[in-house]
Amino acid sequence: MNKFGRLFSLSIFGESHGESVGVTLDGVPAGIPLNEKAFAADLARRKSGKRGTTPRKESDTPHILSGVFRGRTTGAPLTILFYNENTLSGDYANLVAHPRPSHADWVATKKFKGYADYRGGGHFSGRLTLALVAAGVVAKKILKRRHRTLEIGSQLLEIGGCAEPARFPEIIEAALRGRDSVGGLIECRVQGVPVGWGEPFFDSAESVISHLLFSVPAVKGVEFGSGFAAARMKGSEHNDPIVSMDGTTATNNAGGIVGGITNGNEIVVRVAIKPTASISSPQMTLSTETGRPEKLIVKGRHDACIAMRAPVVVEAAVAIALCDLSLIARAQGL
Amino acid sequence: MNKFGRLFSLSIFGESHGESVGVTLDGVPAGIPLNEKAFAADLARRKSGKRGTTPRKESDTPHILSGVFRGRTTGAPLTILFYNENTLSGDYANLVAHPRPSHADWVATKKFKGYADYRGGGHFSGRLTLALVAAGVVAKKILKRRHRTLEIGSQLLEIGGCAEPARFPEIIEAALRGRDSVGGLIECRVQGVPVGWGEPFFDSAESVISHLLFSVPAVKGVEFGSGFAAARMKGSEHNDPIVSMDGTTATNNAGGIVGGITNGNEIVVRVAIKPTASISSPQMTLSTETGRPEKLIVKGRHDACIAMRAPVVVEAAVAIALCDLSLIARAQGL
Amino acid sequence: MNKFGRLFSLSIFGESHGESVGVTLDGVPAGIPLNEKAFAADLARRKSGKRGTTPRKESDTPHILSGVFRGRTTGAPLTILFYNENTLSGDYANLVAHPRPSHADWVATKKFKGYADYRGGGHFSGRLTLALVAAGVVAKKILKRRHRTLEIGSQLLEIGGCAEPARFPEIIEAALRGRDSVGGLIECRVQGVPVGWGEPFFDSAESVISHLLFSVPAVKGVEFGSGFAAARMKGSEHNDPIVSMDGTTATNNAGGIVGGITNGNEIVVRVAIKPTASISSPQMTLSTETGRPEKLIVKGRHDACIAMRAPVVVEAAVAIALCDLSLIARAQGL
Amino acid sequence: MNKFGRLFSLSIFGESHGESVGVTLDGVPAGIPLNEKAFAADLARRKSGKRGTTPRKESDTPHILSGVFRGRTTGAPLTILFYNENTLSGDYANLVAHPRPSHADWVATKKFKGYADYRGGGHFSGRLTLALVAAGVVAKKILKRRHRTLEIGSQLLEIGGCAEPARFPEIIEAALRGRDSVGGLIECRVQGVPVGWGEPFFDSAESVISHLLFSVPAVKGVEFGSGFAAARMKGSEHNDPIVSMDGTTATNNAGGIVGGITNGNEIVVRVAIKPTASISSPQMTLSTETGRPEKLIVKGRHDACIAMRAPVVVEAAVAIALCDLSLIARAQGL
Repeated sequence: MNKFGRLFSLSIFGESHGESVGVTLDGVPAGIPLNEKAFAADLARRKSGKRGTTPRKESDTPHILSGVFRGRTTGAPLTILFYNENTLSGDYANLVAHPRPSHADWVATKKFKGYADYRGGGHFSGRLTLALVAAGVVAKKILKRRHRTLEIGSQLLEIGGCAEPARFPEIIEAALRGRDSVGGLIECRVQGVPVGWGEPFFDSAESVISHLLFSVPAVKGVEFGSGFAAARMKGSEHNDPIVSMDGTTATNNAGGIVGGITNGNEIVVRVAIKPTASISSPQMTLSTETGRPEKLIVKGRHDACIAMRAPVVVEAAVAIALCDLSLIARAQGL
Repeated sequence: MNKFGRLFSLSIFGESHGESVGVTLDGVPAGIPLNEKAFAADLARRKSGKRGTTPRKESDTPHILSGVFRGRTTGAPLTILFYNENTLSGDYANLVAHPRPSHADWVATKKFKGYADYRGGGHFSGRLTLALVAAGVVAKKILKRRHRTLEIGSQLLEIGGCAEPARFPEIIEAALRGRDSVGGLIECRVQGVPVGWGEPFFDSAESVISHLLFSVPAVKGVEFGSGFAAARMKGSEHNDPIVSMDGTTATNNAGGIVGGITNGNEIVVRVAIKPTASISSPQMTLSTETGRPEKLIVKGRHDACIAMRAPVVVEAAVAIALCDLSLIARAQGL
Repeated sequence: MNKFGRLFSLSIFGESHGESVGVTLDGVPAGIPLNEKAFAADLARRKSGKRGTTPRKESDTPHILSGVFRGRTTGAPLTILFYNENTLSGDYANLVAHPRPSHADWVATKKFKGYADYRGGGHFSGRLTLALVAAGVVAKKILKRRHRTLEIGSQLLEIGGCAEPARFPEIIEAALRGRDSVGGLIECRVQGVPVGWGEPFFDSAESVISHLLFSVPAVKGVEFGSGFAAARMKGSEHNDPIVSMDGTTATNNAGGIVGGITNGNEIVVRVAIKPTASISSPQMTLSTETGRPEKLIVKGRHDACIAMRAPVVVEAAVAIALCDLSLIARAQGL
Repeated sequence: MNKFGRLFSLSIFGESHGESVGVTLDGVPAGIPLNEKAFAADLARRKSGKRGTTPRKESDTPHILSGVFRGRTTGAPLTILFYNENTLSGDYANLVAHPRPSHADWVATKKFKGYADYRGGGHFSGRLTLALVAAGVVAKKILKRRHRTLEIGSQLLEIGGCAEPARFPEIIEAALRGRDSVGGLIECRVQGVPVGWGEPFFDSAESVISHLLFSVPAVKGVEFGSGFAAARMKGSEHNDPIVSMDGTTATNNAGGIVGGITNGNEIVVRVAIKPTASISSPQMTLSTETGRPEKLIVKGRHDACIAMRAPVVVEAAVAIALCDLSLIARAQGL
């Protein structure tokens, strides 16, 4: 469904090789200073260009179509549009009959009965995360307005199983040489979130955050605090005793969320990103025309490690989810 | 928020030591045979009684309050109620001023300004999963009605880090001896799901499933298919080539979901369950009366390994999420 | 759909002649004093007993199943249940094959494929408004807590086309004599609503209020302020000039809502209630068994003027809608 | 809230004198032929130009930004954008301190804390109905695809209290001479709707339709079938006996909806449109700068009878609401 959020909500639209990608935000408070420049820093973090990312170059210039007047948000829906510029649709013609392994080509064809825009993944392209990043910029502004100490950051913990950032370039080079791709692990941390965000029973803070994170292409796992390691721990190890009246705990295995509700400690969430499905070494697929296996060489321009561009996307998703929860909490006088 | 689902939706209510726990289901198709006995098998799977589970005994008898007439669902909202019987509220009086580490006591007090029902965790108790299990029974009936080959199952893969079921009793005994608890890992698999369930952009199948799973108390992580291992894999390893016209893939690293949409292969999802927060060995906590650390011994009746009772809860959550997606897909002629 | 409201939301369930009718409220702030007695006054206003209302007698005793602890709301979902007592299902057996004109019998059978609970209208019965009235009591408490000057009231303006309350008994007697029923007109007014409730574009205050009002059985029309008379007015007559800095207008043709947003003046909404469909004089209907017209005499116990019992229902609907809008406005710092 | 609909949903954005007005539709089935020309007829019906409508001229050219590929809908979100061309912002500067009676100027300023785009009513302008009309075109295409006999139409029944179309020009001239405006009454009828659309309890067909109708600026009342006249009728007059096995009734006081569910008869809904608030004769208002009453002469370009342009808007609103209900019904196998 093209809608997320109860009070701060967004709908996104667009295709990789169509005219544009965009997002409409609803519930943006009036009076927040905003112009196109505000998006530059986060958009730059998402951009390709570094070794290991796609050679497709896009200016990614945001156009604010509505919701801003005289440099401030008006309270009305805020639409941000990005025109697609560097589209080479010819690259994708072959993929209609030869669905790329682990890409959305085949399910999109089936679900949309042959009418999906298949060029560059169409609506399923990672390019749609541009809209999420733009929404994240606004979400962070809203969050920081009432919660001045709130800080959110994200980083690439691992790529290809390696947790030493100094060795990342080496791993990328190996992937490029092998015409292959690698996955990665991203962590997002948020300080300064007050106690009380999250709505039982179904809108636990983890539920809302994971909902948005799993809408990001390539995400295969989400964990909070101790995460999967918790399954291997004892209660005596895992429990986080409260040590001060503001709720600070001695350890933070909870990742800042207990009973689905933020507890005032740092929120810690980790996200597993699968290796880019598009690789240029030969793969087997099925010809949907002949019904027989065929060798496929995916042309086009791809990321060897999409996880490199994803930390800002993860951060945006977490910020959007928290922003919605923060407004609901405000309605409760929190 | 006390509501999940767009077409098949549920709202749950109740407290651990209040009068009852219940659930109202909306969007249940008319004409499905249903009576109280239909819930017995799944409720039994959730029940305590085995070594390592709480000695609290509840008959867990479902009462259908509405939505069934002459043994069949009517299409109107279906409410199922469970009276609480074996409540010992005295056990919990001490916990108001001494919040249990990693339990919802403290956040509930803060969020609800001192008015939360604190007895046995109140609305945050694992007892609320009774309502989920009941809803899951109905969800599975709805799913199987149109998709006769659909099979859903879940199992405990690990407890306390051990993946050998034969050794589980030994791990439980050790936890009991140590007045401690252990976490666990649960896997749910679903066969027979057709291609096309899941709604881009925000209601990917993973988003909807994880949303519900993370509303289950004690869940710290959710992963699909290869999950976190994907972060350490290469594209050439991870990609699942399609090998037949029905979409069957040679491998299933995707866990049956690509681009947020089911691809006809088995859905595989794993859930990390933290060790029960309530342990009877002494722990430190903060006295919210004095502001000073104090030693806490949690009395009451607890599970040494809540994960043992959770497979049916995980299965219910997955079934509920899929049921909603299936009805949306049906509206699309799928 | 069995759900209304974004922050203050309700789901209702039950049937006229089933076990019970109930409602679950979500988003109720914690700490509001509440017990079963709080419902008595409004439930009494809805009760039958007066001349012209059904002889069916129900104690209408509310049972609070969840969400209240030690006499105050907890912030968790609040469920209120009413058992049905005085059900005479035999009265309705004949109606399966002989749908009552202008009653839901026939559409319910079609929509729910023959499985609807047809006894006394089942889920379509006016008895479901019991749940709305109970929810309205809570909504009014929430509203008055932050808006102490807010007052809401409703009255029967007309029955059977007569606007003189002194003559209402005479109209009722005539209807009873004629084994007939009469419609009525109800007005609800709310003072003390602050400026700014209502959410453009789709959740105008009128949209949200009318949505709930039209879910009440027998409502055929809803108008605000000048309402349908506005269609016959000139702008120079209709416009309401602001005369003081708090937004007070000289006239109130707007009915307290401009541009979909409350303007601080009295909210005025009128609701047309059709005559009760169940009348005991002979009517023609179609036998769904033979496909031929047949004479029908509706037995059972009915209201000659359901509008007499409806003012408190209309008031509840308006209060519920405003309560949801008030919480959204609060999230906006209003 | 900038979102309407459960399965066929829309979000709209834009301002009267901003860059553009647009709409994003979600849930559009794949494969429907669509291009910019498809909107021409309905947009022309909404256009100004006739005597009595604003001299503001806009080309109202739709731009499809997403969701269409090779002339057919793709199943992905469909965004349609209209650039504003003929904006004269200078006309409105005076209105900030002198809110127009019965216009949204004052509430918008209060709700959005002085940051609303006040030019030409900003987001509250009737220009936003352009987006509704565009959405209505798509809704009608979706409806007719599965329901080939479905026909929807709307007409102006009255303006200024006159029900004789031959005299409408005369009434317009009188309004223009008096620098005044007049209201109107619009009726929308839909044939060919099958039995069973509408979802109890809260999403009755009337609830969903009225919700959307009351989001249209200037609507003050909505009634179905007999509407307000029902309040003055007897049951024996009002009841609609079924006369054939397809549910056809001898009369149609129900307006095609019983118990909130369509009954297969013609849907009949009437909408009261207030006279345009902007009139050019002098009016009193309050100076929000001095707090004193002042005479206001509204400049700018206005409609003497906005109801003349509204039938297609009403029709669009009804079509959008029915489209959503039709998809929900389809999920139920109806």
